Amino acid sequence: MPSIKEEVEEANSKSVSRMMESEPVWIDVGTAEEKLSMKGRTLLHAGPPIDWKRASGPLRGAIIGASLYEGWAETPREAERMTERGEIGLDCTHNHNAVGPMAGVISPSMPLYELMDEKHGTRTYSNMNEGIGKVLRYGAYGEDVIERLKWMGSVLAPVLKATIEEARKESGRGVSLKPMIAQALTMGDEAHNRCNATTSLLIRQVVPFMLKSGLDRKMLFEAAKFMNENNFTALNLGMAAAKAMSLAAHDVPHSTLVTVMSRNGTDAGIWVSSLGNMWFTAPAPVPRGLWFPGFSEADANPDIGDSAITETAGFGGFATATAPAIVAWVGGSVQSAIEVTNRMYEITCAKHKYFQIPFLNFQGTPTGIDIRKILKTGILPTINTGIAHKKAGVGQIGAGTVSFPMEVFRASLKGYVDKYGV
Amino acid sequence: MPSIKEEVEEANSKSVSRMMESEPVWIDVGTAEEKLSMKGRTLLHAGPPIDWKRASGPLRGAIIGASLYEGWAETPREAERMTERGEIGLDCTHNHNAVGPMAGVISPSMPLYELMDEKHGTRTYSNMNEGIGKVLRYGAYGEDVIERLKWMGSVLAPVLKATIEEARKESGRGVSLKPMIAQALTMGDEAHNRCNATTSLLIRQVVPFMLKSGLDRKMLFEAAKFMNENNFTALNLGMAAAKAMSLAAHDVPHSTLVTVMSRNGTDAGIWVSSLGNMWFTAPAPVPRGLWFPGFSEADANPDIGDSAITETAGFGGFATATAPAIVAWVGGSVQSAIEVTNRMYEITCAKHKYFQIPFLNFQGTPTGIDIRKILKTGILPTINTGIAHKKAGVGQIGAGTVSFPMEVFRASLKGYVDKYGV
Repeated sequence: MPSIKEEVEEANSKSVSRMMESEPVWIDVGTAEEKLSMKGRTLLHAGPPIDWKRASGPLRGAIIGASLYEGWAETPREAERMTERGEIGLDCTHNHNAVGPMAGVISPSMPLYELMDEKHGTRTYSNMNEGIGKVLRYGAYGEDVIERLKWMGSVLAPVLKATIEEARKESGRGVSLKPMIAQALTMGDEAHNRCNATTSLLIRQVVPFMLKSGLDRKMLFEAAKFMNENNFTALNLGMAAAKAMSLAAHDVPHSTLVTVMSRNGTDAGIWVSSLGNMWFTAPAPVPRGLWFPGFSEADANPDIGDSAITETAGFGGFATATAPAIVAWVGGSVQSAIEVTNRMYEITCAKHKYFQIPFLNFQGTPTGIDIRKILKTGILPTINTGIAHKKAGVGQIGAGTVSFPMEVFRASLKGYVDKYGV
Repeated sequence: MPSIKEEVEEANSKSVSRMMESEPVWIDVGTAEEKLSMKGRTLLHAGPPIDWKRASGPLRGAIIGASLYEGWAETPREAERMTERGEIGLDCTHNHNAVGPMAGVISPSMPLYELMDEKHGTRTYSNMNEGIGKVLRYGAYGEDVIERLKWMGSVLAPVLKATIEEARKESGRGVSLKPMIAQALTMGDEAHNRCNATTSLLIRQVVPFMLKSGLDRKMLFEAAKFMNENNFTALNLGMAAAKAMSLAAHDVPHSTLVTVMSRNGTDAGIWVSSLGNMWFTAPAPVPRGLWFPGFSEADANPDIGDSAITETAGFGGFATATAPAIVAWVGGSVQSAIEVTNRMYEITCAKHKYFQIPFLNFQGTPTGIDIRKILKTGILPTINTGIAHKKAGVGQIGAGTVSFPMEVFRASLKGYVDKYGV
């Protein structure tokens, strides 16, 4: 009979192997209503469950914006009141295998990317990236924000839907994301807070099919221009791919690996593979980083967003050593970027089979966060992140890094002991 | 009065500064006949001057292919005889401010990229990239090669011409290449033998304008697909940009900087800034590298092509440290890639102001090759290169690295002493 330790090692090995062998492929575009069967006045948001009362400024701002976008409310005040009274419901993205950066708010008529994990048959989803600055996901909800969302629904989404349909017609398959992320990691991205290469690779791969679609040229031009001008275009697809990977690692009995790390701007929370969809939460810390002109740490909201799913799947902050140029965006030095990655090996159980770091002799990225190792070493997962203003309506004010709080890992170990009695 | 040494230092400083401040911008597409006023049966080729008798296999193959493409000859044998008898003339690309990779053969009806150096007003040119394997520039001349060249003339070139015209209409300017190369160097390219990022950046930047052009969708689709499937699409534009940069550094009295390094498959040759368009030549060495399946060093032709213009301008092999993943293509290790770049600082006079190496703390690339330093240190310029089969008609058989021969630098120093008496 294997020892308990051996049983856990074996479970973790299975769990991380499923994560690495996942094959997420972008296959379709559709609204949340179509793809997630969202009905009525419900909004999804990033991170663990929360209500209006405890919601942070940027989440509130995004809820207001989404309610205006859907036409549920005429004014911000009305949207606030409706959400406060429960007339607009809130639910977690992760309950629907969906992810969204920052506030991560998804409303029924917003377009989503749909991914299929060809290895495990699951589907995951993400919304589309709006660019940086004054955007919904950072809590801005001005007229320009709503206008952009409407354009994304009426122009960007149909173009991307036609594009992916043409691509599937041509190749019999969607756009495979694991090779794209792997390639981007050899091109200076960590594919979370630096997506320059991922976005370039995405655009060059889909453009021929965009051209082949029968759509109006003006629409195509606008969509291509928008995608090109935003280096975060590919972030959301990468996140949905990371969700597929970590979902594949989820629900393995005895596994102590983390399969969700996320934040809602108030709380940070995790899931552990063998503990189902139970959230272990603690107050979200404020990131450190570089500030857009006119802003400082005093303006910063605590950490927010589902994007830490990338670190959960072995890239993002964990692959910082692949992306030395990111220090101009999140702060730090080239040496510190390498040190972050080296430190993450201490709390993970594998070197990624497909995601490699050229400058560390093509060593695999640190993958599969083990709560036992975090508690043993005291080393916390490092996340690369954007920073939102703490007030609703403002938007992005910087980018930086943040550590996930120790309390969530302590709580999850307690949950593990409660369940398995060890 | 400044000492002679001071005079040379000042000249080199001026020369390298002009090189780095050059602003090459892609402005147009046209045939060699239109852009270079090529008339009659003349072909341009890479490297120093050569005649049929001394021409290597791949250069002969490319001459044959270009003659078939132009319809000057019906058979390879006829093309050979015509060139041997001087009925088809040969001239150097560099005499026309043009560059071409490998054989570098340009015939009158081939389409060229035209670049303008906005800083210095000069124009430079390059042909378009055909992909790898059996292609004209590696000496292949089969029917598929000629068909591809015709398609490039009738589909790719008109699409690129319409695209650059739309881009200029929109922005009032062409596509600026220095920022693109600088960006690609932070994305794992050295922009000579690894152009994955440069090509991705090029495609994403021009695609919106491609969509805006009024051209037939089938043409656009074919062109975009062809560009996407070839990671060397951007190489030729980068070479023409490097030619603009090194041309700006040329003709500075007293300067001992190298402004052309090139090879024709038989001889390697250089120009020196203060010594006009005089070639200093020596036999071209055979590159070392990795071989396509079925080939070995015994099949390899000596070094060939104008592409060493990239190293002349401070990237390519000199920036190998930016491109660790290139070792899978040209051989070596990550450590050796860094060592190559470090060694090149010993023979150059500047760290590039705009081309930076993230992993060496954003240090500028080694730029401005000084013949004095080569002779003093015995360190030779390292070039990243493709490898052609030595027989006409075969094509590419590998990729690797090569050192430029010491004799050319010795000969150029003698030329310098003859001119300046020191």
